[in-house]
This record gives sequence, C-alpha cells and structure tokens, in this order.
Amino acid sequence: MAIQLFELCGADPARRFSPYCWRSRLALAHKGLAVETIPWRFTEKDAIGAHGAQKVPVMLDNGRAIVDSWAIAEYLEDTYPDRPSLFGGAGGHALARFINAWGDAVLHAGIARLVVSDIVQHLAPEDAAYFVPDREKRFGMKLEAVTADRAERVKGFRDSLMPLRIALRSAPFLHGDAPGYADLIVFGGFQWARCVSAFPLLTQDDAVYAWRERMLDAYGGIARAAPAYAEA
Amino acid sequence: MAIQLFELCGADPARRFSPYCWRSRLALAHKGLAVETIPWRFTEKDAIGAHGAQKVPVMLDNGRAIVDSWAIAEYLEDTYPDRPSLFGGAGGHALARFINAWGDAVLHAGIARLVVSDIVQHLAPEDAAYFVPDREKRFGMKLEAVTADRAERVKGFRDSLMPLRIALRSAPFLHGDAPGYADLIVFGGFQWARCVSAFPLLTQDDAVYAWRERMLDAYGGIARAAPAYAEA
Repeated sequence: MAIQLFELCGADPARRFSPYCWRSRLALAHKGLAVETIPWRFTEKDAIGAHGAQKVPVMLDNGRAIVDSWAIAEYLEDTYPDRPSLFGGAGGHALARFINAWGDAVLHAGIARLVVSDIVQHLAPEDAAYFVPDREKRFGMKLEAVTADRAERVKGFRDSLMPLRIALRSAPFLHGDAPGYADLIVFGGFQWARCVSAFPLLTQDDAVYAWRERMLDAYGGIARAAPAYAEA
Repeated sequence: MAIQLFELCGADPARRFSPYCWRSRLALAHKGLAVETIPWRFTEKDAIGAHGAQKVPVMLDNGRAIVDSWAIAEYLEDTYPDRPSLFGGAGGHALARFINAWGDAVLHAGIARLVVSDIVQHLAPEDAAYFVPDREKRFGMKLEAVTADRAERVKGFRDSLMPLRIALRSAPFLHGDAPGYADLIVFGGFQWARCVSAFPLLTQDDAVYAWRERMLDAYGGIARAAPAYAEA
C-alpha cells in the first residue's frame, strides 16, 4: 500500500496550502516515494484524530502514523536511508532545526502578516467559521487589518530574507547543488503564500525569487503544477 | 612549526575582540590543533598584507596562508579530516552557510548597534584614528549616537534571536550534543561583544544565555579565560 499523506485543502480539494504539508510532500518526492494524498479540512478533526493527530501533515506508512512535518522528515530519512538524503548527514540534520526555527519565527510570521486575509476566500464556509475567529484572536485584530498596510510592510519582509539571499550567493540551493530538507522548509512558506494569494512577496531581481523558481521546477515541477497564483 | 593565527587585538594585545578571529580560534580548538596566536591591530596592514590579506583572521599552516574565517574552517575540515568534524558532513557544511549569513545580517548587525561605541576605549590611539571615522561613515552618525538608545533597542535584538532560542529547545548546541562550526559562528558574535562591552545583551533566564555559558566553558574554557567583561 502506498504511503498516504493528509494535506490541508481549501473548499477546492485540489488547493493544498499548508506550508508544513508542502514540506512533507516534497520530502516524499525527494526520496522518490509514491504517495496518495488525502485532502483534509480544518474542521475534519475526526479523520486525523483517529491517528492521534490534531494537525496536518499526518503520514501513514506501513500501518504507522507519523505526525508533524519534522517527525515525517526524520522518519523518512531513517526508514529509507538508501534513497537520496534529506539532511546530508548529522550536521545537516542538526542545523536544519535552526532553519526550521527561522522558518517559523521569521519567514512564516512575516508571510502570515502579508497574506492571511487572502486565505479566507479559499475556505469552505465551515472552515472559515473556525479559521477567521481563531486567527483574529491570535493577531488581536480583523484579518483585513493585519494585511491592510502590506504594500508598505513588504519591504521589511524582504529585508528579513537577507540571510537567505546571502546564503544563495554560494550555491543554487541552501543544500548546495541540489535541494535538501532545509530548502523544503523555506520553500513551504513561499508555496503556502502562492497557493492562496496573488500578493507579490518577492521582486523578480531577487536571488530568492530565482531560487523559488528553481524550487517550483524541482521534483518534476510538482509545486508549480499545483493550483496557485502565478505571482509577479 | 605550529599553526599561527593573526588575531585582532586592542591596545592591550591580550584583548582579542574580532568575532571572526574567535570562530577560527575555536575551530582550531575543536580540531585539537595547537596554535600560536599573533596579536594584530587595525593599522598593521603590512603584517598581513605580506600574506595577501587585508583583514584578519589570517592563518598560516605549513607555509600556506589561509585568509577569511570561512576559508579557514573549510581548510581545517579538509586538511584534518581525522580530527573532530566542524561541519558534520556535506549537509552541515552547506547549512552552516545560512547560519553564517544570519550571523552577518542579523546577529552581528544587531550587536554592532548595541556595543560599537564601547570598542573605542580598548583601541590604541592610531587604531582609534582609523576605526572611529570608518565606522561613523558606515553608520552615518557618531558612534555614541548609534548606541545612545540601546537600553530600549536591546529588546528588539533579543527578539531577533528567536530562531536560536527555538533551535536550542531541541539540543544543548546548534550542532546537537556538542558544538560544531555553526555554534562557533554564532558564539563569535557574543564573544566579540563580551570582550569590549559590559552592556548586557541577554537576560539570565534566556536559553541563549545558558547556551553562551556552555560555549564559554567549551574547549577547556578558552573563551571564558579571555580578557573580557563578565556580562550580567
């Protein structure tokens, strides 16, 4: 039986917009493993609760449920060691944690404040009824207010990507000549935005933009083929 | 002949305050290699110019000069592969570049704006005559003005360390159970500040503070033994 992956989706089950689910999907592609994805919505708690999970991604492999994108990456690396490495050894495994942390604290936090209000239009009504008050409580304001001044604030976001920009001077991917899990961590955030919003996070002359293009083409172009906005 | 390392010093040749020189010194300790350090001042251009360098660190090994802390780390890893690894494999080597970039763009930039005016008191007069106008040009203001509001700004600096704080939830060092080159990259910044300034960058309840304590004790406590301020 193929590996199965529960992925967050919108009203359209083909619109998969979770940054963490994208990490796992591309990690499976990196390992060359076939996967059957199962669209999952915010309010379908029972479907994943049966596997001990409250959030996606949830991966099922050989009767085991693996919950959380980081745990999935570690599981894949340990269980399929003969396939292309996600981490590139012990050092890469350890340092991917720092990039994971940067992804959460800087990248995702920055992207959320630029696109969160655009997510709502893609949600089924019952999911929007959960999502909107939950996120408005988190931000302490209406979602439209969070993104209202994004045209001005995007400059600060782009500045916050400087470590990425500098690192990409040395190699086409964070992992070097080919992408590794750290690239998937960072790309997941951009793909999340791309799947829900037409707002341009990057300018075309940015080295991060060129890297994102390479990531969209990687693994047979899975990410580029997904329902999303072709961002300027 | 032992490896030699040119290190930036103040008026007191024992005060070594370059973050990049600290990376290299600790990288040598990580490899268990003996080193003879050579104190070097900003205005002693000829001493390193003879080795094709304009900045320190410069390392001399077996008649070769290696310039730049990153190049020194790569040289040590390649030349002494049987000694403890700095990078932990290809993935760790690649991802250390991202942490290097974060170190420059976020950590060093943040620290400089909090302590740069404190450096001057430690410089020989001829070095201060170079350093002060050079840095004032870079910042576009007097060095006292750069740090004037640091008591308020330090909160933003501490916030910027969140990726570090999150990563250190998983392990005592960025590299896991023991420090690796990524730890040295980040620690170099803190040691730079500690060698020139009594200004408290961290609070004692911060996981980053506890990590810095571990780094001060690592490698036989080399960093703790250096002339510096015992920061609150």
